Amino acid sequence: MKAYLSRRYRFSASHRLNSDSYSAEQNLAVFGKCNNPHGHGHNYIVEVTFGGQVDPVTGMVCDLGALDTFAHQHLTSIFDLVNLNTLDHFKTMVPSTENLAIVVHRIFSDFTGATLTNVHVEETGNNSFDYPGEIGPTTASTAAA
Amino acid sequence: MKAYLSRRYRFSASHRLNSDSYSAEQNLAVFGKCNNPHGHGHNYIVEVTFGGQVDPVTGMVCDLGALDTFAHQHLTSIFDLVNLNTLDHFKTMVPSTENLAIVVHRIFSDFTGATLTNVHVEETGNNSFDYPGEIGPTTASTAAA
Amino acid sequence: MKAYLSRRYRFSASHRLNSDSYSAEQNLAVFGKCNNPHGHGHNYIVEVTFGGQVDPVTGMVCDLGALDTFAHQHLTSIFDLVNLNTLDHFKTMVPSTENLAIVVHRIFSDFTGATLTNVHVEETGNNSFDYPGEIGPTTASTAAA
Amino acid sequence: MKAYLSRRYRFSASHRLNSDSYSAEQNLAVFGKCNNPHGHGHNYIVEVTFGGQVDPVTGMVCDLGALDTFAHQHLTSIFDLVNLNTLDHFKTMVPSTENLAIVVHRIFSDFTGATLTNVHVEETGNNSFDYPGEIGPTTASTAAA
Amino acid sequence: MKAYLSRRYRFSASHRLNSDSYSAEQNLAVFGKCNNPHGHGHNYIVEVTFGGQVDPVTGMVCDLGALDTFAHQHLTSIFDLVNLNTLDHFKTMVPSTENLAIVVHRIFSDFTGATLTNVHVEETGNNSFDYPGEIGPTTASTAAA
Amino acid sequence: MKAYLSRRYRFSASHRLNSDSYSAEQNLAVFGKCNNPHGHGHNYIVEVTFGGQVDPVTGMVCDLGALDTFAHQHLTSIFDLVNLNTLDHFKTMVPSTENLAIVVHRIFSDFTGATLTNVHVEETGNNSFDYPGEIGPTTASTAAA
Repeated sequence: MKAYLSRRYRFSASHRLNSDSYSAEQNLAVFGKCNNPHGHGHNYIVEVTFGGQVDPVTGMVCDLGALDTFAHQHLTSIFDLVNLNTLDHFKTMVPSTENLAIVVHRIFSDFTGATLTNVHVEETGNNSFDYPGEIGPTTASTAAA
Repeated sequence: MKAYLSRRYRFSASHRLNSDSYSAEQNLAVFGKCNNPHGHGHNYIVEVTFGGQVDPVTGMVCDLGALDTFAHQHLTSIFDLVNLNTLDHFKTMVPSTENLAIVVHRIFSDFTGATLTNVHVEETGNNSFDYPGEIGPTTASTAAA
Repeated sequence: MKAYLSRRYRFSASHRLNSDSYSAEQNLAVFGKCNNPHGHGHNYIVEVTFGGQVDPVTGMVCDLGALDTFAHQHLTSIFDLVNLNTLDHFKTMVPSTENLAIVVHRIFSDFTGATLTNVHVEETGNNSFDYPGEIGPTTASTAAA
Repeated sequence: MKAYLSRRYRFSASHRLNSDSYSAEQNLAVFGKCNNPHGHGHNYIVEVTFGGQVDPVTGMVCDLGALDTFAHQHLTSIFDLVNLNTLDHFKTMVPSTENLAIVVHRIFSDFTGATLTNVHVEETGNNSFDYPGEIGPTTASTAAA
Repeated sequence: MKAYLSRRYRFSASHRLNSDSYSAEQNLAVFGKCNNPHGHGHNYIVEVTFGGQVDPVTGMVCDLGALDTFAHQHLTSIFDLVNLNTLDHFKTMVPSTENLAIVVHRIFSDFTGATLTNVHVEETGNNSFDYPGEIGPTTASTAAA
Repeated sequence: MKAYLSRRYRFSASHRLNSDSYSAEQNLAVFGKCNNPHGHGHNYIVEVTFGGQVDPVTGMVCDLGALDTFAHQHLTSIFDLVNLNTLDHFKTMVPSTENLAIVVHRIFSDFTGATLTNVHVEETGNNSFDYPGEIGPTTASTAAA
């Protein structure tokens, strides 16, 4: 009986889209208003999904309390009420929400209670991003062949 | 043209997380406040997903009216405004939301209008669980090999 | 410049609607399925509204951190993951959501940072209750006359 | 680093479920109130999902501005504030929401910035439909075998 | 102890904004795309609010079951899955959502369990309308003077 | 027949809470993490409410198209994707969400189609602020006396 648990965490942060590989003109052309030097921000919603056997005694995929403690320590205490550009995680890459999803995936890959299967990040009510990691269904199918 | 129909049903119920395999001390250690003898509750949202060919005449995957009748008879009339621990479905297992998803999957597997592909249960706005059944993509891939 | 701050707190609890003034038959007739002896539950959302002058220096109606600390101590740490019927607050009254709104109003009336003007409680996505306290606009109008 | 971008577009439209292949009696029997000659309507939410490599310089799967321009031109300017039955897209098929998902899939398949992987349409808060296109996981698995 | 109960009802309907007092050109100029002869539609959410003393025995403002029965009979069974222009209620007025709020107010004014204090109608996620009836706070203030 | 129209506008912006009247230590003590020099951000939702007679011919309180044009010109084109601290509106006051509500009120007070009765701003899903302007019910009651 394999089930999936999804848990949402929320934080409010700002970011500026700007690439060191581009000139000021190129950055403006590519990122438009999102390139303004003072940044803008969002209420980010991060949903992490873990898959695993449902424990026949506890009826659970993993210990939710342990997951919340992990998330507080490694995600919300660091990402809430900051400018993402100032975090070490984004020293060498643009803090786009695609990259944020990849960063969050790396963070929760270290949680040992169950297998991380997806990271979903909502930037606004109209925009969201998913990063399932690199060992996705396509790879599995290829391996199966 | 295979499409997927998802339909949401809602009920308000209570539960107590407690395993007969554990001592009182163990139950408290594992389930914390969720083990309090008087229980607590949630507004559960159940979303069932069915896949099937879109009928070229009706333009539909299945008869939504028939699905609603089925859901009323087998789900909401039984699960709404009750304590889940008192239901036969949870006589031998903890009424965790993972197990609730599995129970709901068993119930809707008997609906004959289309193929059940997933059960999604939201326990709170921050917590949800998915159970796609045991004939999932992994099994299919393995069979393919 | 008088503004209003509203803050939402959430807890999951169960309740049973049953009045000591009624016989078992009367309770069943009045409360229906909500009278089942094992209870049922909800994800309650409590929104408290405070009015006050916007401080010309801080730009704030009140200290949100202080409000959150108060709410944790007096509301969520007590009401989350419990059966409302077991709380002292409901010893002499039915734990209906109307009465829950009144109880929450009493609790937050002790917060000294600003003036409590309303308590709003959502029981489900279709049901909500407001209790503005007894010194409402009608009374003020009468006083004005 | 393959990620997925989902973007929501919204429009308000009406439709009448009625098939030319059926008699008036059959249409009424199959579609019930949804067959009334004057139609009814919904606030449709369309979510299109695109997958692609995250560009190492921009940190993006595709140009969101270009997607929005495409969506305005090909979706919302055409589908908002109309009766779906009057659109060319539904000349030969019932404007069910399953068929709407298929139509939206055809439209966004022409967007060249990234690979369309799913179309999700919410008809009401309780009803939604997904159409991933015909080159789905099943086909991939079959190919793998 | 006066509290307020708000209850949400939902229906999906279509409408065309068109006034008999206007020429075709005037209607198009005033209502734009909303004047197209085939109409468009919405998932309307109606929230009715009732005020009343909280019954010291039941803990309730009014009998919710009775309100739901009333709403089914007088609102949802009539307004769901129809074109509002075809209803008697809109024979002599444009089925704008402002007028819909007024019509709903008239309907629920006949409910005898408590005092109707407001009707709120959501047309889309960005648009809503309130009609508190004609005996509003302004009248009360005037009377007070 | 006086009704109220509420319309929601959305923008994503960043802000830093910092008062020129305070020392760096005081600012940190009062605003905590919200005082970090690089700011953080939110998806702000602004809901403006206008009251007015329902026009007997159009069935409307005001011209929604004119309101949207006004809002685009004076609100969203200016406030979206910026840092609030850099706007002229906040040159002499902290860009708290209370002050943002007051600023938005000043802006929409210039809309001539109907009478502005309230500005509601949601900072997060748990936080919101209302500013009804200075000619509120309290003042009216006092005048009535």
